[in-house]
Amino acid sequence: MQPFADRVAEATGRLGPLCVGIDPSASLLEQWGLPDGPDGLRAFGERCVQALRGAVAVVKPQVAFFERLGSAGMAALESVIAAARAEGMLVIADAKRGDVASTAEAYAQAWFSSPLAADAVTVTPYVGLGALAPLLAAARMAGGGVLVLTASSNPEGRMVQEAVTASGRTVEEALLDAAAELNRAEVAARPGQRLGSVGAVVGATRSPQALPVATLGGVLLAPGVGAQGATAADVGAAFAGCPPGSVLPSVSRGLLSQGPDGLRSGALRLQEDLAAALG
Amino acid sequence: MQPFADRVAEATGRLGPLCVGIDPSASLLEQWGLPDGPDGLRAFGERCVQALRGAVAVVKPQVAFFERLGSAGMAALESVIAAARAEGMLVIADAKRGDVASTAEAYAQAWFSSPLAADAVTVTPYVGLGALAPLLAAARMAGGGVLVLTASSNPEGRMVQEAVTASGRTVEEALLDAAAELNRAEVAARPGQRLGSVGAVVGATRSPQALPVATLGGVLLAPGVGAQGATAADVGAAFAGCPPGSVLPSVSRGLLSQGPDGLRSGALRLQEDLAAALG
Repeated sequence: MQPFADRVAEATGRLGPLCVGIDPSASLLEQWGLPDGPDGLRAFGERCVQALRGAVAVVKPQVAFFERLGSAGMAALESVIAAARAEGMLVIADAKRGDVASTAEAYAQAWFSSPLAADAVTVTPYVGLGALAPLLAAARMAGGGVLVLTASSNPEGRMVQEAVTASGRTVEEALLDAAAELNRAEVAARPGQRLGSVGAVVGATRSPQALPVATLGGVLLAPGVGAQGATAADVGAAFAGCPPGSVLPSVSRGLLSQGPDGLRSGALRLQEDLAAALG
Repeated sequence: MQPFADRVAEATGRLGPLCVGIDPSASLLEQWGLPDGPDGLRAFGERCVQALRGAVAVVKPQVAFFERLGSAGMAALESVIAAARAEGMLVIADAKRGDVASTAEAYAQAWFSSPLAADAVTVTPYVGLGALAPLLAAARMAGGGVLVLTASSNPEGRMVQEAVTASGRTVEEALLDAAAELNRAEVAARPGQRLGSVGAVVGATRSPQALPVATLGGVLLAPGVGAQGATAADVGAAFAGCPPGSVLPSVSRGLLSQGPDGLRSGALRLQEDLAAALG
């Protein structure tokens, strides 16, 4: 399997950078006329995949909206992931997992080699990036990505994310630095590989230009486009120095609330705006 | 339903403070002679419950070790949680979940009102404690607990957890302060309630005495007893000022590696040592 970042660059080069969230909340299911049960979750996800095939390179199921119905919801997620991958889409499981050592290894198994296997998984770094090493190793082996939650869009996150580490850098800066170092080492060891497997999640509304995103050397997932407020132009300005094909602006409710019929046309419009803005 | 902390104090008052992890890793399954599949996970968990009934008040399934087999693993977790609760045990789902707003709400549904429902869930606070408000609200409604990962046992966690926030407090101190404030408000609004629903996870090896644990006013989960190094005496010293019945020292591999037969006697020995040390 080709490395994740290369697959992202290739696929978004064809279809555009937009990543669409698959977030079957109770209220969206109701709006789409679907039951709030495992079958509704499955139908919601499959309709998203059908509407977006050939229009979007990357989808991002939010795991919590499946897990909320227990194992039956997780079974629906497995179907949705499989449907998206069968259409050639890249799937980012938005799971925000993260725990130490042997537990990180178990999460690696879940998200890279169980029926839940995706192309990338989001992780949360409260236990430190080093503790997630087994997940990163598994990702590289599988040609997958690990996207580290770094700068979240919500104001309550500032307390942790802007705290100052021993090196004088903020937590979010230090995490991006550490991820960049992992990516440099990975790329150095693999001639021909351009970007590394460690990506970051940086809210599009979070002034990414003030953070060392351009030197990450991995995929940047940027939620917060549309409903949460960032325009295509904002995204272009915020990630100006990043390598081509490495930025994935992501939208969820803003598009999903247009219903299954408006989803494809809305996505195509956003693709155009984003492709222009990201140059 | 009685508040979580009251239920913990009542149950540990009868049986002792020990919390036992249920961590069906591939290597432990092999050691126990069980297949590494959903049936093996279920059998492992149910044997733990049978071995520990009447000996331990609280068990803590590590969700990652179930999730690693996908939805079938999560179905096994549902059975194990149900088996433990049927025996009157309190169940802490060690899920380390955490995400913003509507996603936190979805996780609340998963862990307090789906087939995965437990008595408490561990959460990770990288997005800030405030972002987890929907989870806390759901916990209170359900008489459940939310245990905030605060000081993890691994060294890589120091970078984030000891970073200094705008108030001059470290991240781990500031989180304990914020949780204490939520607990004070909760208790003030509910005459007769002694402790609040917001607990914390503080590694037993992490010098808890240097942190404001005694003023938390909620349950303290302290992993790292046994295999990872803290003795009963360490735990007693570390949590000396905490309210009676609020500290749950937790052990996983250290006991589980004794096999299903040694589990009960090992747990009973630890209960004695811990009860003496926590006074």
